[in-house]
Amino acid sequence: MADPRFFVRSGPFALGALAERVGARLAEGVDPARMVVDVAPLDRAGPGDISFVDNPKYLEALATTKAGAVILSERHAARAPLGSARMLSAAPYLAYARIAQAFYPAPRPEPGISAGAHVDPSARLGEGAAVAAGAVIERGVEIGPRCVIGAGATLAPEVRLGADCRIGAGVHLAYCLIGDRVTIHQGTCVGQDGFGFAPDPKGHVKVPQLGRVLIGDDCEIGANVTIDRGAGPDTEIGAGSWIDNLVQIGHNVRLGRGCILIAQSGIAGSTVLGDFAVVAAQAGLTGHLRIGAGAQIAGQAGVMRDVPPGAKMGGSPAVPIRDWHRQTLALEKLAKGRQEEDP
Amino acid sequence: MADPRFFVRSGPFALGALAERVGARLAEGVDPARMVVDVAPLDRAGPGDISFVDNPKYLEALATTKAGAVILSERHAARAPLGSARMLSAAPYLAYARIAQAFYPAPRPEPGISAGAHVDPSARLGEGAAVAAGAVIERGVEIGPRCVIGAGATLAPEVRLGADCRIGAGVHLAYCLIGDRVTIHQGTCVGQDGFGFAPDPKGHVKVPQLGRVLIGDDCEIGANVTIDRGAGPDTEIGAGSWIDNLVQIGHNVRLGRGCILIAQSGIAGSTVLGDFAVVAAQAGLTGHLRIGAGAQIAGQAGVMRDVPPGAKMGGSPAVPIRDWHRQTLALEKLAKGRQEEDP
Amino acid sequence: MADPRFFVRSGPFALGALAERVGARLAEGVDPARMVVDVAPLDRAGPGDISFVDNPKYLEALATTKAGAVILSERHAARAPLGSARMLSAAPYLAYARIAQAFYPAPRPEPGISAGAHVDPSARLGEGAAVAAGAVIERGVEIGPRCVIGAGATLAPEVRLGADCRIGAGVHLAYCLIGDRVTIHQGTCVGQDGFGFAPDPKGHVKVPQLGRVLIGDDCEIGANVTIDRGAGPDTEIGAGSWIDNLVQIGHNVRLGRGCILIAQSGIAGSTVLGDFAVVAAQAGLTGHLRIGAGAQIAGQAGVMRDVPPGAKMGGSPAVPIRDWHRQTLALEKLAKGRQEEDP
Repeated sequence: MADPRFFVRSGPFALGALAERVGARLAEGVDPARMVVDVAPLDRAGPGDISFVDNPKYLEALATTKAGAVILSERHAARAPLGSARMLSAAPYLAYARIAQAFYPAPRPEPGISAGAHVDPSARLGEGAAVAAGAVIERGVEIGPRCVIGAGATLAPEVRLGADCRIGAGVHLAYCLIGDRVTIHQGTCVGQDGFGFAPDPKGHVKVPQLGRVLIGDDCEIGANVTIDRGAGPDTEIGAGSWIDNLVQIGHNVRLGRGCILIAQSGIAGSTVLGDFAVVAAQAGLTGHLRIGAGAQIAGQAGVMRDVPPGAKMGGSPAVPIRDWHRQTLALEKLAKGRQEEDP
Repeated sequence: MADPRFFVRSGPFALGALAERVGARLAEGVDPARMVVDVAPLDRAGPGDISFVDNPKYLEALATTKAGAVILSERHAARAPLGSARMLSAAPYLAYARIAQAFYPAPRPEPGISAGAHVDPSARLGEGAAVAAGAVIERGVEIGPRCVIGAGATLAPEVRLGADCRIGAGVHLAYCLIGDRVTIHQGTCVGQDGFGFAPDPKGHVKVPQLGRVLIGDDCEIGANVTIDRGAGPDTEIGAGSWIDNLVQIGHNVRLGRGCILIAQSGIAGSTVLGDFAVVAAQAGLTGHLRIGAGAQIAGQAGVMRDVPPGAKMGGSPAVPIRDWHRQTLALEKLAKGRQEEDP
Repeated sequence: MADPRFFVRSGPFALGALAERVGARLAEGVDPARMVVDVAPLDRAGPGDISFVDNPKYLEALATTKAGAVILSERHAARAPLGSARMLSAAPYLAYARIAQAFYPAPRPEPGISAGAHVDPSARLGEGAAVAAGAVIERGVEIGPRCVIGAGATLAPEVRLGADCRIGAGVHLAYCLIGDRVTIHQGTCVGQDGFGFAPDPKGHVKVPQLGRVLIGDDCEIGANVTIDRGAGPDTEIGAGSWIDNLVQIGHNVRLGRGCILIAQSGIAGSTVLGDFAVVAAQAGLTGHLRIGAGAQIAGQAGVMRDVPPGAKMGGSPAVPIRDWHRQTLALEKLAKGRQEEDP
């Protein structure tokens, strides 16, 4: 179970209620009143725990689990041991995620402004919002109901947050308008000047950055991320996008809905990503590109051209991922051939 | 126009005054008393706005712009529509940058120490300097006139700032001497220990890092950048250098004047860059290299050898950029050949 | 010598006492009572300074040094000039590191809680601990004796620090248990949610991250690093590991003892590194890998498969480093051949 110093567990819950909550159903014969007290992975779960299996490579672990209940798809149902109550779902991991959220809801600090916070009198806080010690809320800021502002976070003048946002410790927000239910983790910086200047040997001259950052509802943004504000147009993060740690987003970038950007990837200025595009770790996209909806960019790829919707790209410079694998194999064979020639 | 909640516009300005201010001249017949009220891109500008064209690929947008005035070079002057007053400049983007600065000067908070700032009594602040809430100014710090210190920024003992610096929210400065007119954006860390230790299986032993960070005048440094202090010699950032977000600069690195380091690039310890060298995004330079003045390193390149002045390098390991392009093409052809052989 | 505004020097020390302190011995004829006042590199050292030579490429500098004393190995002893007292060590750089620490011990602020710090009454501080202005110590935190907490650092509820830790300015710690003598530099974030969600077109669903971050004794962690907490298991940093700036460590990652992770490298979730593994700058490791003890991953490598103990890997995708060099050469030759064919 999770360390109780850090995590407060809710429950127990009846299987029937959980199934209803997540849109799953119990297999025949399972008592909907049967209680579970915690979530756990298959190999560590006990009779009071609910677990799940989604990836077939865990079917072996399923066979020997001691979990009191298991969420799984119909086609795997027969593989569960007799002692485990089966909860059937077309998307077991999704159902598990929601059940884990029921057991471990995000902690909610006492509403109100901590004694050590610095809040400008012109700022407006929604009902139930909480501001931790050391946070700085500047002139004209608007914070929606039930938002949580972490220790040492700073909100520059006129920043807007919707409802139920969670702003981590040491997050720095400026020139931005943020939707509802947005989570931003520790140390992330939003809204600083984009990297815009007119190069000149007598001294590069800054071009004022006159846009904002717009972040849609339900986004999750990691730690020590940087999102520059637009140069004139805005930088936009589409609703439901997930951004991992240490990602760089340049000015005027536009992400569609549900995009996924994995750690240390970077998107240069004015590039546009369609809905549900995925950029894997340490990949880089140059500026002014159009990346189609659902495109997938492999880790460490270097994308320098537009990418059609749904395409998978890899390598640096990036090519369709099959071509990249072919290149990798061809180079391996070439090098081996040479090795035989010149030992 | 820029969101007035975030941006305060100056002006209007007469075209004649603006031309004089930026070293441009008005075309024949343009009334120097004609006023403009804002800057805007060609496609969104109206009769009150001034715009610019520099890159020939925007000549089409020029033909149909409704901008009241356009900055452009003599050779493009005939392409402007009749309604747009022409301001002639050999460097239109540079002129535009300066005019945009006139309309949108950097905001200047009220001078003085905010109630929520923590300033050691031994620190000295120049006239007109402003320190925001939550900032911490430690023993012996000297801050020049008109500097702006953001919310939650921390200046460790004895740090020096020249005049007119702008230190963003949550910037952490230690062991550094900073010139005039330096801007550092949110979350950047300057002056922590370099990565220096004597490896030992019984426990790596730290080598005290006894140098400083020296930052020249007119530098611009992005968000969440890291600049380590020197190990004995200093780490030096030459005057007028521009550093983008999430860049890493190791101990003893020396940048010449006007260097440009783009997002997520990294320079390992003791490497020296000549004046106006450019390192593109996600490129890495190993330690103890000499990179000549004006050299250009492509995105994601991995530089492991000295680079002569003016050279352009790409690839990992990096080679002259033409060779890199040749390698890329050769590998593509090789993979296609193989594909035909082994379908 | 180091800038006395920033560095306070101890000493002078007698050579005999220093040799004893670091397990070295003085060459025949050296007076153990001879004093030295500072450390310096060979080419800048004067008669009062002690220097060292380890890498043979500095033997030339040794020949002409004016250092009063030099630490070096027996086989190089004859190369030192007559005026320099020789201190013999099998590991000169290690001995130098310890002597430099004697001259420049890490600065120790006055113990106690600064007036501008925010410390929850339930937090417990060990004897001699110091908390700087702007730091926020939340409910239930335990800080060991002689720890130093920097300006603006934030420690979330229930965080534990052992003895003699140094937490830099603006470090953000949550959900973590930290050993003794751990140093964390400015801006680093520990313990935020790992990147865990069930993807869904109707909105990705967060999987609660129920693990912690465990950091062993004697670790050194750079600036603006991100270390996510575990998803259920913990994220673990083995004792004596050194992590450079801007490194990303995903959830459930386990580092063995003495690992070295260089700047901007990244380790994806659930990957395990054996003792003393080294990951060079900008390298990336995908998730769920096993990297053997003592393995070395080259800069910018992209590791997608398990790596055996002691192996050296390079390239993206990574291969044994010799194969990578062969591939690099083969590609160079191929491109040159093509160039001759199609000029």
